[in-house]
Amino acid sequence: MNRWQEQLFELLRFPSISTDSAHKEDVAACAEWLAGKIKEAGLESEVQTTPGHPVVVGKNKHEAGRVNVLLYGHYDVQPVDPLNLWDSPPFEPVEKDGKIWARGSTDNKGQHFAHLCGIAETMEEKGELPVNLTVLLEGEEEIGSPNLRPFLEQNREEFACDVIVVSDTGMVAPGVPTLGYGLRGIACCEFWVHGPARDLHSGVYGGVVANPATVAARLVASLHDEAGRVAVEGFYDDVADLEQWEREMWATVPGVSGADVLKVTGSRELFGEAGFSSAERLWARPTAEVNGIGGGYQGEGSKTVLPAKTQVKLSFRLVPNQKPADILAKVRKHLEKHCPSGVTLEIVDGHYGSAYHTDPNSKYGKAAQEALRKSFGADPVLIREGGSIPIVQDFKEVLGADTLLLGLALPDCQIHSPNENFAVVNFEAGIRMNRILLDELSKTV
Amino acid sequence: MNRWQEQLFELLRFPSISTDSAHKEDVAACAEWLAGKIKEAGLESEVQTTPGHPVVVGKNKHEAGRVNVLLYGHYDVQPVDPLNLWDSPPFEPVEKDGKIWARGSTDNKGQHFAHLCGIAETMEEKGELPVNLTVLLEGEEEIGSPNLRPFLEQNREEFACDVIVVSDTGMVAPGVPTLGYGLRGIACCEFWVHGPARDLHSGVYGGVVANPATVAARLVASLHDEAGRVAVEGFYDDVADLEQWEREMWATVPGVSGADVLKVTGSRELFGEAGFSSAERLWARPTAEVNGIGGGYQGEGSKTVLPAKTQVKLSFRLVPNQKPADILAKVRKHLEKHCPSGVTLEIVDGHYGSAYHTDPNSKYGKAAQEALRKSFGADPVLIREGGSIPIVQDFKEVLGADTLLLGLALPDCQIHSPNENFAVVNFEAGIRMNRILLDELSKTV
Repeated sequence: MNRWQEQLFELLRFPSISTDSAHKEDVAACAEWLAGKIKEAGLESEVQTTPGHPVVVGKNKHEAGRVNVLLYGHYDVQPVDPLNLWDSPPFEPVEKDGKIWARGSTDNKGQHFAHLCGIAETMEEKGELPVNLTVLLEGEEEIGSPNLRPFLEQNREEFACDVIVVSDTGMVAPGVPTLGYGLRGIACCEFWVHGPARDLHSGVYGGVVANPATVAARLVASLHDEAGRVAVEGFYDDVADLEQWEREMWATVPGVSGADVLKVTGSRELFGEAGFSSAERLWARPTAEVNGIGGGYQGEGSKTVLPAKTQVKLSFRLVPNQKPADILAKVRKHLEKHCPSGVTLEIVDGHYGSAYHTDPNSKYGKAAQEALRKSFGADPVLIREGGSIPIVQDFKEVLGADTLLLGLALPDCQIHSPNENFAVVNFEAGIRMNRILLDELSKTV
Repeated sequence: MNRWQEQLFELLRFPSISTDSAHKEDVAACAEWLAGKIKEAGLESEVQTTPGHPVVVGKNKHEAGRVNVLLYGHYDVQPVDPLNLWDSPPFEPVEKDGKIWARGSTDNKGQHFAHLCGIAETMEEKGELPVNLTVLLEGEEEIGSPNLRPFLEQNREEFACDVIVVSDTGMVAPGVPTLGYGLRGIACCEFWVHGPARDLHSGVYGGVVANPATVAARLVASLHDEAGRVAVEGFYDDVADLEQWEREMWATVPGVSGADVLKVTGSRELFGEAGFSSAERLWARPTAEVNGIGGGYQGEGSKTVLPAKTQVKLSFRLVPNQKPADILAKVRKHLEKHCPSGVTLEIVDGHYGSAYHTDPNSKYGKAAQEALRKSFGADPVLIREGGSIPIVQDFKEVLGADTLLLGLALPDCQIHSPNENFAVVNFEAGIRMNRILLDELSKTV
């Protein structure tokens, strides 16, 4: 075990579970440890307080005329339940089968610490970094980063940058370096269909008034056509077309074929918008999904009621250039139009965020591709992701800079689950990648 | 207070709550008390055991050549929670505002005891009854009569009869005598739509596989057409048409107009099959209702999952001459036909029972009408009911006899709720009705 791995093990021993107030001191100690490591590397570093868990900030000596890079990561981790499913204790890292097993090994300690090791190596060898670097490590990512955006807004000057580097996503397969350049957005809402004043006896009253569960189901059914295309008027109006190079590249990306999707989801058949591959549907096409539906009796056996109300939770995954507020307005109009007059429809808009998209072939994107190519010894694939990372959108909105998503996670890394692990080869590649990346980025000025 | 009312108060003081094992002795004591009263009237009587609560049986001296009448009632009552909503203690009956207030006053002690009082009066005056009467009072109606059908099957001879009299239903309005001659049947089933092996992240996987909640909603939507008519193929095939006299009479029945239905259900608008009045929809038209639907996240806020499965509970109210098993088979076929192939559909049939229908103008029906007319001093209305009373169907199947539903309950009697009450005038009319009814039935031989 080399010194970097020894240090990573030290980092992994902090039970920095941000959601559990019993671990508040562990989170704080972890932040102090990281600030110490950044200082050891020769950068300035301090732990800055927020109303929640602290933020670790590091900086080298900034000089005019150089590119300004912000490196983001998070040192808090998910809870570890159920403990009995772990093969080794989550905060006692072990190396086995080429992997480091511990909570936080991939998400996100291993990934951002690889960058810190790369920085330390460069500083040791050259005494300086080729770029103006700011390190930002937060302790609240796993609880939704409630204090990060306000913190950035209060410190815009300190975190002003040209480009942001984040390793907190995945590689499509082992040995396949992956650059993410897009994320879907999201718009959530829920609606309630209210009917009679109380649950009614379905014998005594069935047949004369609308059943809210039936109405809710019919509203859900109205959201798609038979073929699975979203039927909300104007839903696709602003959707940016896929570019030809994307379709060609994605056809070759491992891990996202129809067969792969069926295997990983345990589904029997694919279903979705016609004319698009699985990868295209996941990364570049918008969706309308029911996240939850509930009304009436859901226990064992039967209770012959006509429910007074039924609830539906919806989320829409968005792509460039859909506008979340516009989509929510269109959904509202659609639901109101399709709702029969005998019931009361209550729609509550939820959280939303735009899709994120940057040019993977910008000068920064090309630098990232080069770093991935050289550190992994293979051509990188360029992908988008189906989920959302709100912090990336916050960076764009608050700092005005684009983010390079240089993920080091593998499909079987089991983040958020028992037996989380991080491939040693990816840790080592991550260290190399950081060194090459900062070098390549320095040439973009 | 006359002696019958005093005795009814005694009966009402038994806390004969059948569902609560703490009241087992109270239920048994109530049965003994009733058997004693039947003996006092001059009939034979005994308390017969079952695997559950006992049955009270009474008989006068049966003679050849007379009509055989079975009088059914139940002496068990519903629980009384929430106690704090009662204006007076549920088992301390009081008379106020022309009503007797107590648990069981209407459901069903007051109603069957009126019959027993009528019998006692006839026996006092004439020393005999004009018919061969068998009294059957059960102690498990409020828990679904689990032992009554087996008891009847084991004692077919003892309970063989020409006609059955039950006062356990309602009058459509005060002063409007009501003969029930039909009940809707029921067929229940539930289905599960199973999709992916577990809840999926709606960002990472939304758009490539079918969402079980969406599929379930589309299946529910497929059960009706836009106008509210059931769209299951063949659903209406066996439905008996309403007779013209029924439509004409029901148009005059108070309490079941559209406005009445809206008021009592707290609904905003009527909805249902076109071409039928509210009473016709409730009493003579079949329905398909969702009793419950549930899948995915139903808590506060949002959780962006694509649920692994979604559940729907359905019940169908049936009318003559629909066959429950046939309807469940048609529903199964419909659901299977409309379910997309990418998910697994699991359908579980539930309990069911046929609609009940007898001729209100049969010789027994005419006797019942005459008894209602004379005891209330007004022409009776002839109605069906929207709900089901399984015991009536059991009587038909086991004993082969039809049931006359001579309800004495008023719409505001609050059965199963706090402040249950029974109108004194209905108690008195019930006593008169029994005497006239047995007289009229005796003429049907």
